Amino acid sequence: MTAPISEQLPADELREEGQRKMEWARQHMPILDSLREEFEENQPFAGERIGMAMHVEAKTAVLAETLAAGGAEVAITGCNPLSTHDDVSVALDAVDGVTSYAKRGVDDDEYYEAMEAVIDHEPTITVDDGGDLVFAIHEEYPELIDTILGGCEETTTGVHRLRAMDDDGALEYPMFAVNDTPMKRLFDNVHGTGESSLASIAMTTNLSWAGKDVVVAGFGYCGKGVARKAAGQNANVIVTEIDPRRALEAHMEGYDVMPMDEAAAEGDVFITTTGNRDIIVDEHFDAMDDGVVLANAGHFDVEIDLEALESKAVDSYEAREGMQAYEMADGRRLHVLAEGRLVNLATPVSLGHPVEVMDQSFGIQAVCVREIIENGDEYDAGVHEVPDALDREVAEIKLDAEGVGIDDLSDEQEEYMNSWQHGT
Amino acid sequence: MTAPISEQLPADELREEGQRKMEWARQHMPILDSLREEFEENQPFAGERIGMAMHVEAKTAVLAETLAAGGAEVAITGCNPLSTHDDVSVALDAVDGVTSYAKRGVDDDEYYEAMEAVIDHEPTITVDDGGDLVFAIHEEYPELIDTILGGCEETTTGVHRLRAMDDDGALEYPMFAVNDTPMKRLFDNVHGTGESSLASIAMTTNLSWAGKDVVVAGFGYCGKGVARKAAGQNANVIVTEIDPRRALEAHMEGYDVMPMDEAAAEGDVFITTTGNRDIIVDEHFDAMDDGVVLANAGHFDVEIDLEALESKAVDSYEAREGMQAYEMADGRRLHVLAEGRLVNLATPVSLGHPVEVMDQSFGIQAVCVREIIENGDEYDAGVHEVPDALDREVAEIKLDAEGVGIDDLSDEQEEYMNSWQHGT
Amino acid sequence: MTAPISEQLPADELREEGQRKMEWARQHMPILDSLREEFEENQPFAGERIGMAMHVEAKTAVLAETLAAGGAEVAITGCNPLSTHDDVSVALDAVDGVTSYAKRGVDDDEYYEAMEAVIDHEPTITVDDGGDLVFAIHEEYPELIDTILGGCEETTTGVHRLRAMDDDGALEYPMFAVNDTPMKRLFDNVHGTGESSLASIAMTTNLSWAGKDVVVAGFGYCGKGVARKAAGQNANVIVTEIDPRRALEAHMEGYDVMPMDEAAAEGDVFITTTGNRDIIVDEHFDAMDDGVVLANAGHFDVEIDLEALESKAVDSYEAREGMQAYEMADGRRLHVLAEGRLVNLATPVSLGHPVEVMDQSFGIQAVCVREIIENGDEYDAGVHEVPDALDREVAEIKLDAEGVGIDDLSDEQEEYMNSWQHGT
Amino acid sequence: MTAPISEQLPADELREEGQRKMEWARQHMPILDSLREEFEENQPFAGERIGMAMHVEAKTAVLAETLAAGGAEVAITGCNPLSTHDDVSVALDAVDGVTSYAKRGVDDDEYYEAMEAVIDHEPTITVDDGGDLVFAIHEEYPELIDTILGGCEETTTGVHRLRAMDDDGALEYPMFAVNDTPMKRLFDNVHGTGESSLASIAMTTNLSWAGKDVVVAGFGYCGKGVARKAAGQNANVIVTEIDPRRALEAHMEGYDVMPMDEAAAEGDVFITTTGNRDIIVDEHFDAMDDGVVLANAGHFDVEIDLEALESKAVDSYEAREGMQAYEMADGRRLHVLAEGRLVNLATPVSLGHPVEVMDQSFGIQAVCVREIIENGDEYDAGVHEVPDALDREVAEIKLDAEGVGIDDLSDEQEEYMNSWQHGT
Repeated sequence: MTAPISEQLPADELREEGQRKMEWARQHMPILDSLREEFEENQPFAGERIGMAMHVEAKTAVLAETLAAGGAEVAITGCNPLSTHDDVSVALDAVDGVTSYAKRGVDDDEYYEAMEAVIDHEPTITVDDGGDLVFAIHEEYPELIDTILGGCEETTTGVHRLRAMDDDGALEYPMFAVNDTPMKRLFDNVHGTGESSLASIAMTTNLSWAGKDVVVAGFGYCGKGVARKAAGQNANVIVTEIDPRRALEAHMEGYDVMPMDEAAAEGDVFITTTGNRDIIVDEHFDAMDDGVVLANAGHFDVEIDLEALESKAVDSYEAREGMQAYEMADGRRLHVLAEGRLVNLATPVSLGHPVEVMDQSFGIQAVCVREIIENGDEYDAGVHEVPDALDREVAEIKLDAEGVGIDDLSDEQEEYMNSWQHGT
Repeated sequence: MTAPISEQLPADELREEGQRKMEWARQHMPILDSLREEFEENQPFAGERIGMAMHVEAKTAVLAETLAAGGAEVAITGCNPLSTHDDVSVALDAVDGVTSYAKRGVDDDEYYEAMEAVIDHEPTITVDDGGDLVFAIHEEYPELIDTILGGCEETTTGVHRLRAMDDDGALEYPMFAVNDTPMKRLFDNVHGTGESSLASIAMTTNLSWAGKDVVVAGFGYCGKGVARKAAGQNANVIVTEIDPRRALEAHMEGYDVMPMDEAAAEGDVFITTTGNRDIIVDEHFDAMDDGVVLANAGHFDVEIDLEALESKAVDSYEAREGMQAYEMADGRRLHVLAEGRLVNLATPVSLGHPVEVMDQSFGIQAVCVREIIENGDEYDAGVHEVPDALDREVAEIKLDAEGVGIDDLSDEQEEYMNSWQHGT
Repeated sequence: MTAPISEQLPADELREEGQRKMEWARQHMPILDSLREEFEENQPFAGERIGMAMHVEAKTAVLAETLAAGGAEVAITGCNPLSTHDDVSVALDAVDGVTSYAKRGVDDDEYYEAMEAVIDHEPTITVDDGGDLVFAIHEEYPELIDTILGGCEETTTGVHRLRAMDDDGALEYPMFAVNDTPMKRLFDNVHGTGESSLASIAMTTNLSWAGKDVVVAGFGYCGKGVARKAAGQNANVIVTEIDPRRALEAHMEGYDVMPMDEAAAEGDVFITTTGNRDIIVDEHFDAMDDGVVLANAGHFDVEIDLEALESKAVDSYEAREGMQAYEMADGRRLHVLAEGRLVNLATPVSLGHPVEVMDQSFGIQAVCVREIIENGDEYDAGVHEVPDALDREVAEIKLDAEGVGIDDLSDEQEEYMNSWQHGT
Repeated sequence: MTAPISEQLPADELREEGQRKMEWARQHMPILDSLREEFEENQPFAGERIGMAMHVEAKTAVLAETLAAGGAEVAITGCNPLSTHDDVSVALDAVDGVTSYAKRGVDDDEYYEAMEAVIDHEPTITVDDGGDLVFAIHEEYPELIDTILGGCEETTTGVHRLRAMDDDGALEYPMFAVNDTPMKRLFDNVHGTGESSLASIAMTTNLSWAGKDVVVAGFGYCGKGVARKAAGQNANVIVTEIDPRRALEAHMEGYDVMPMDEAAAEGDVFITTTGNRDIIVDEHFDAMDDGVVLANAGHFDVEIDLEALESKAVDSYEAREGMQAYEMADGRRLHVLAEGRLVNLATPVSLGHPVEVMDQSFGIQAVCVREIIENGDEYDAGVHEVPDALDREVAEIKLDAEGVGIDDLSDEQEEYMNSWQHGT
């Protein structure tokens, strides 16, 4: 049985560094800061047990402590074997009301054991990043479902899995699709994934974006963010897509659009953002230039077919920390970052999403958890969109913190917008 | 009773110029070109009467002739008193199966008489831009509604009016909200409104965007387009909004966001894109600098309170063609383009949306008209979204015409996207 | 002998419109406004005769009246047969101290006769745009050179011609290379040529930039401006160059770079900015797609080989005002704007450079004219750079007018910048 | 007396990692690769001793080995106490013909002792980054100057110091101002400093650029790069300047421009790029918001007045690795990265300039060293611009490596460009 992280690692050595990281994050998370004040006063989560499976680093830790501040008992583990910051996990484990089981570099068995440890707390609410926790409960611990009020899911991929479950009639409690809110998609996916993926790649490879041919697979919100930020660093962006509307959108923003079969021969850097599998596969490796860099910014490590790459490589070595070189029979070397896992989380220098971006996503998570408790009985089992008012509430808190003012709708304007008897 | 335009104007003098304009448009409208071939062969509209109220210039004319090529009897008039190109109207009137009543510079009475002339054809399908035709039929000719199969509406504002009608239970036949498709919103609103509004302003004022403070009111699709294109010309963009999410989005794209009360004192150029009334009003005029330029890129001329401006001006004169100067008591001069009407249509040099952009919007209109005839009985009275397959069809035609290739989803990928049992 | 324009055209009909255009320009030319005040008070040009050959439209007219306000007798003609605004020419002719001979649409003989009329005033100072006036004086009226104090030249091309003259020892009085100042190059070439060329093309063709392949020939200041502004409208920019450094610069900004032989087959729109001849020639026309648009943003109409195009065309007609279609034997149609002349000046809708941009260029012209009078004897015959202090003076006037503040160098900072004994 | 680095550190442990880093760099430095081949064959440096003081990391190491491959005896040390990578220094020390004395974290005495160790090799050529080596030789070892053929200097700041020496008549051998070439300024300063500074800040702070107010002090090439790349990440950029032309240039690119006194209260992140001292000083700290981040991208640590900051702080602690927090009496916390040293080199995650960018700069260094040997007697003591042909040669090698083609000037075009008798 997995023990809390403080019992597994030298907690006294690690805790202060973790707390320092959390303090920095806290300074740049004004939304959670504002909600923490509210929660401390109202104790909306008193008596609840919240199970979390997330990338455990400073920002997530601030969410966990914010929920605990509202009276919840929080148990948390990682949602990716390489993304935990041990120091933060230890610091978080020391917070009143929080138990952390997250540890970096666990193997598959340890990963699921830690998840079981969280489930063992018999959560009444689940907060997920990728859907592993919801899925484990449904598969292995269906008996818990009765007492679960609901949950939230953070990622594109996780929501995708939940919708597939829901379509199969297999999702047995209400889940908020936090990923699908305008707030989340625009800020987390576009700005967060875009900026942090590029910075992780730059700081792992020491290469420049200027003049590079950067192939972005997928032109959803993540792909848009990666494309726009890469172009903003003077890269020449090439987009691959399967949807004709998105392909056309990319084309009309001025990007080159082509199938991966062609793009493979053009790119210097490849970044996958599709959420799907087998985006860069066998025949593409054959077409690539010597020296190319491959990175994945989608949730799972299935976008680049590493198995195929390994099987055709005659040699393989760590070219730089966080980047493996695969040497082909003809001497070409292809470089894969972070073993094809999320590049903005899983290289040695990666820090995950920027703090402020996560403040927005986590702010929505926090108000969704509050909504589950306050109005959970209004939601059937299944995937639910985040109520508009909650999304709006979080945006207002943020604008307020940034000192940004907006206009109000006058009565005449509201009347005008709701009427239809105006002519030319 | 309004006569066809060829009987009102010297048709022989105007026709050739109109045909030349239509020929140029036709060359850059590959989607309508492809659909016209299909329609000519299949005659899907044989026996139908299509009533249209649109900005009658070269591109709209190509849509009208495309519908006529499919066997329809088309009757068309303008949807704005200043946006008709008389030469095109005459040339269109000469097309087999088309009667045009549109004329530039009509007064209110003439405007509605021309609309009545169209209605007099007893249309079975209506194609609208702003909703005036639908509205006139519902208000004045309810007896026609029984034989109307359905219609399409092109604009944000028109869809807005239709939804309001629908909410009141007052919309009595099915209408496709062409404006709301991804294709329309992204291309027409973002690229079309953005580029053509800025070019119209530049070519009316002869001013530069570089270093200008440009206030964009509203950050919907039109506002985003105007903001992005203005920033792309090195303007410093200021955004005003009433929705906190959009305001935050603008803020995180790097724009300044503030209430109009503050922006009024900052801007050199003001562009309204809200679709609402009273965006720039009395107190704002007081705060503005000498020499500012005011333009509207929203559908109706209600966004800038011209009445208030006129009443406080001590003098007023045409500063340049298409731009009126209003002199304040303190000597400041504020300049309004195109009488506050749609700036990309209503100045002397304005050409409306770019040709290719309209090809996309009109391609959707054309397939929606086809859908009404083929499957109209599947749609209840009310506002309907454009079926995804139609939108997708148009995108595919366009990509094909541009020679842009995309990827296909493999069976394994499709299975993966529909499954939920994959873990980390 | 050419008469002043007011004697050639119906001056009373045209004057007011010209004055209205000048009034608008004056409002947006704060640098000339500030200098005019100074000149009116100090009368620095009293007794001097200034000969000018420039594009005569509102902005140039404000320069001419500013010089006249300083006491000069000004005689002006056009520097391009298609760029004169007759109404402005008439209005300018009515200004005290100014005689204008500029008329739109003159033939070659008339063009040079008008130039002779200016020369007939026996100018003591020449202000040129393209070098035709300086050249005519050196070739035809060398006897005048003795009394000429000096002159200014505005354009890249003109300065290029003057330097070639100077290298040949053929330039016999001092000329300021206004084109080469930072102020002129960055603002006039980058922002002015960039914005006005694109707006002229958009408003002549009614095409969109979004998703277009735009080939920019030359990556000097003008080419950079065109490329940047086109990319800012979501075009996909392709650059051709002869200089490897500029080519590399374009490549590292993220543009595609290739020889014109390849680019010819890729482009939708071609814009030449090189100042050189034969940029788009015979074999390129063969490679181009049906429907392409060709425009020139360099000074002379030698960049696109129109003769070759005409000789291979089977038909030719005006596709739109300001755009000629050339039909090839295989049915492809190539479209040339403004007969290959400066596209931002010579189409029917063109307005030349934006007002504020010209205010900066003309501000330098004005202080250079003042410098010639105050310190002309310090300059030998030949091309001279604009003294740094003059360029700086104009920048300061402009920042002041815009309300933009900057920092001052402290004594310690100045000492630091001039010392070399600081280490790590 | 300082020993080679391999005798100071556990070389066997460090060497392989250093070699791996050099191998990666070598793969992305096609210019040095091409020159190395040439040098190996021709041995241009046989018998010469090259003294280098540079940031010793992988890329510089490839330059050093390239020079050694040409037959030189190379001795190298660091030019900044914090920028050496010890593993690379050890690997470089193992290269035939190279001795490295560079070590990370040396104190002032050790820093100058290592420089003396290099000087002790009695270099015939010096290659500098910041000017410390040239300066030390002139101050302490003037007797060596007689045998020195010449040198190159890489940085803005170093060239600035050399020019000041030259103006004082104190520079006694020829130095190439590598910094001043178009190749160096545009690529190294704009792209290199821009991208690497922002990535270092992002990966040290974990903050987002989107929506941040980023104050860039100085709008030279480095400042332009930082500003453009920050705007490309959706920051709102504010520029401070002392030169009115540069200020106006920034204004017309759409940035806010204001004095630092005002900017201090506006910024979230401050980045100095001026090369001057005292850019952010005492009174600015008072005006800043809680949580601001301060970083320097100029050569020396004199731009932010750390002494003043320390003296007014009531507490100070390491907020994150590479970032020190200073707590003010009123509770505000200001954060300084890398102790105010070059942020793209001196934080724990910093990697210096991107590899390809340095390939260009170092390519020029290499051909300049070759020029000194081949034609050194043609250059007097003093600062020299890099001959145009060398700069061009390097650009051609790079374009060739990138597969980018350009056009050639025809004889007719060359004749046209050199003539002046063409008219309108």
